[in-house]
Amino acid sequence: MDSELIRRLAHVVGDDGLVLDEAAQAPYVEDWLRKWRGRTPVVVRPRNTTEVAAVMRLCRQSGTPVVPQGGNTGMSGGAAPDDSGAQVILSLNRMKRIREVDTVNNTITVDAGVLLADVQNAARDAGRHFPLSLGAEGSCTIGGNLATNAGGTAVLRYGNTRDLALGLEVVLPDGRVWSGLRGLRKDNTGYDLRGLFIGSEGTLGIITGAVLKLYPRPQGRVTAWVGAESCDAVVSLLTRLQARCGERLTAFEMMSAYCVGLVSRHVSGAACPLAGEHACHALIELSDAAPEGLAELLEQSLAGPLEEGLIADAAIAANESQAKAMWRLREGISQAQVRAGKAVKHDIALPISRLSAFIKEADAAVAREFPGLPIVNFGHVGDGNLHYNVLLPLDVPHEEYVHLTAGLNRCVHDLVVQRGGSISAEHGVGQLRRDELRRYKSTVEMDLMLMIKRALDPDQLMNPGKLL
Amino acid sequence: MDSELIRRLAHVVGDDGLVLDEAAQAPYVEDWLRKWRGRTPVVVRPRNTTEVAAVMRLCRQSGTPVVPQGGNTGMSGGAAPDDSGAQVILSLNRMKRIREVDTVNNTITVDAGVLLADVQNAARDAGRHFPLSLGAEGSCTIGGNLATNAGGTAVLRYGNTRDLALGLEVVLPDGRVWSGLRGLRKDNTGYDLRGLFIGSEGTLGIITGAVLKLYPRPQGRVTAWVGAESCDAVVSLLTRLQARCGERLTAFEMMSAYCVGLVSRHVSGAACPLAGEHACHALIELSDAAPEGLAELLEQSLAGPLEEGLIADAAIAANESQAKAMWRLREGISQAQVRAGKAVKHDIALPISRLSAFIKEADAAVAREFPGLPIVNFGHVGDGNLHYNVLLPLDVPHEEYVHLTAGLNRCVHDLVVQRGGSISAEHGVGQLRRDELRRYKSTVEMDLMLMIKRALDPDQLMNPGKLL
Repeated sequence: MDSELIRRLAHVVGDDGLVLDEAAQAPYVEDWLRKWRGRTPVVVRPRNTTEVAAVMRLCRQSGTPVVPQGGNTGMSGGAAPDDSGAQVILSLNRMKRIREVDTVNNTITVDAGVLLADVQNAARDAGRHFPLSLGAEGSCTIGGNLATNAGGTAVLRYGNTRDLALGLEVVLPDGRVWSGLRGLRKDNTGYDLRGLFIGSEGTLGIITGAVLKLYPRPQGRVTAWVGAESCDAVVSLLTRLQARCGERLTAFEMMSAYCVGLVSRHVSGAACPLAGEHACHALIELSDAAPEGLAELLEQSLAGPLEEGLIADAAIAANESQAKAMWRLREGISQAQVRAGKAVKHDIALPISRLSAFIKEADAAVAREFPGLPIVNFGHVGDGNLHYNVLLPLDVPHEEYVHLTAGLNRCVHDLVVQRGGSISAEHGVGQLRRDELRRYKSTVEMDLMLMIKRALDPDQLMNPGKLL
Repeated sequence: MDSELIRRLAHVVGDDGLVLDEAAQAPYVEDWLRKWRGRTPVVVRPRNTTEVAAVMRLCRQSGTPVVPQGGNTGMSGGAAPDDSGAQVILSLNRMKRIREVDTVNNTITVDAGVLLADVQNAARDAGRHFPLSLGAEGSCTIGGNLATNAGGTAVLRYGNTRDLALGLEVVLPDGRVWSGLRGLRKDNTGYDLRGLFIGSEGTLGIITGAVLKLYPRPQGRVTAWVGAESCDAVVSLLTRLQARCGERLTAFEMMSAYCVGLVSRHVSGAACPLAGEHACHALIELSDAAPEGLAELLEQSLAGPLEEGLIADAAIAANESQAKAMWRLREGISQAQVRAGKAVKHDIALPISRLSAFIKEADAAVAREFPGLPIVNFGHVGDGNLHYNVLLPLDVPHEEYVHLTAGLNRCVHDLVVQRGGSISAEHGVGQLRRDELRRYKSTVEMDLMLMIKRALDPDQLMNPGKLL
């Protein structure tokens, strides 16, 4: 790379804003899953929006492609450079300012580089609740959450990241700044640019700031664990609970008996709160700003389904530590999976009414085409989102792993698309699903996306090789 | 217009699908407010998406501009043709099919021409709730609601129309069909095309179908009327109620003492439930899927603010007819306004934290620049949305009305934009606010919208003269 460009970049962000040393670049050029590793001439770390804009102008003038990066915790390789060594990484990790908390408008305005956990904490300190919650919250940035429209465990009640942002500030590929930091619940003055940039995975511009919605803090929380003989029964229970409890239903997570066994075997201290064997388990949480009677409501809501035999057993957490133990069982799945084998992962969504039929079909198809491989099936069933993974032995040779991954992806994704589902529910496309996307999206939809991409990024400098 | 094109259009939609007679065209070429009147060679009324696509192909081949139209109940002239006589009106009013109701996925799939009230009814018949609710619901279509991202009285809890749609079917300007009728709560496979078409006012394509979210039916509802000495106090009450009642808070409508007096004078049978005079009034509604204790919760939530003197008086409706009387008082404002004078209307939104200061400033500015004109100020204060109208005498000469409208718009909108607000909260841009939009939007934001418009509608045939 042109040393003149490096000099100019240093002039913008300061010498300490550039990472040129290869060892120091390591955490930027490789993703945390160690699946994608690339090269970069320089990591540029601007301190504010003005610097981001200046960097973008320099990159555009020199025709340099840019890979925006937040916490680098993505699941789909969306923030890793390719191995050409030509792509500059623009890291937002020095932009960590909480710009404003407004407890009357119930909004928080933040720099893109603020950690998700810090947004949650700032909301809590102000007596409010920022509901986005996911495994990486201690290291992912809100800018990355916005760029990928992150999901997580509270989508059922509060929606995805797109639903949580009222306004954005975005630096465009030409270095101009769109100042869309509006804290408005209603604004019908033109196209939904906010929604367009959210989830565009850094291919249209760089999100540098956002106005996010805050909610009242839940004052009470009740957690239960349920065992049932089928996924069908669990889906029916979901419908019943929604009708009875409304928005109080904050989490409804499903996992197969195999998942529960896997966690019990591989995660110390994790144990199912129910005696007996059940084909399907669910973790249920209600929360409420007015918590009076919340435990009774959950008890009553489960009593009917228990009496009717819709579900086989249920345990309501009697205290916080029992509730935590239930969540540990659910959250232990990822760790248990890593210890038990190499997972071929699918992050899929289906209409909830088609979930159980899909699972039966997919289980049968995998058993037929890939006999003997265990299926780790769990997910945010309240959102129709399954992590439908297949376990390979830990010592599977790399070539076989690649081969089986391709075969399993085809087998599972074909079925998902036939049933009106999505091949990427919450993890995005990045590099991981880029070829799959072209396979499954209609020509019309791909064309629409390409028309928008060409219009907003005519020089194709924004995160090349991702998404499209 | 080319009679060959008419013949071809008739071939697509049938002779009864064309309205050629000038008298029969009257309800299509003029909007219901009688503010915008244009001319059209023909109103085309396709029966299904395939026919819409065929019509669009014919229009494109012949370079004929198209004005999409639903119930023609818009507030901003977005569905009226211009007076060139060159613009074909494409009415969706024969596309009235409820395609599917899915009570497990909680979705309803509909043609764009279904009346909003019919969507609500279909949901109710299935034991579910479709929350979009607004004055024109008996005559507006869901396609129009989507094209304009309609708001209404339930936004506080359920969001705008954009928040209520999971998937769309859209006929593009070139006649191709984007089949995006997905019923998924999570789908991160590319740009948010759904959000982009929603609210684009027919300038990017024609929405022909949608998958909408359904909710559990509220099983209980409590309504209250509150009087306070200032708008500040009402906004504080809103914050208190949100913290205490969470999502149960379904409506929080504010109106000035002048509004209440106006309705009492002009609408027979309307009377304020509170004795005494109050500067500011609020109508509050809680609803819940689990209604036990709902009335007590509202009572308790108002008791503190009453004791502290934050609010001066409150009445909780003891039965359905009292609740209806409260809503009649709120909904009577439009009618009372029509009887009392000619209103210069503003449909504005502000961050809720800036509402009371804005109202003080705007009241002072209007009184200074336009002395003696009464202000009719009411709105969905829970969304930061005010209908901040100014009344002129019924017999004001047309020229003076036009002159005063321009002056008042400038006075009010300048302040709104200075305070970070929106000049069109829920009514859209159409023809009404098109020039205002150019005045107030940044060059960058206008450019972004124009880039998208040019990319998706390169021949500029979709609803010319609206929005952009």
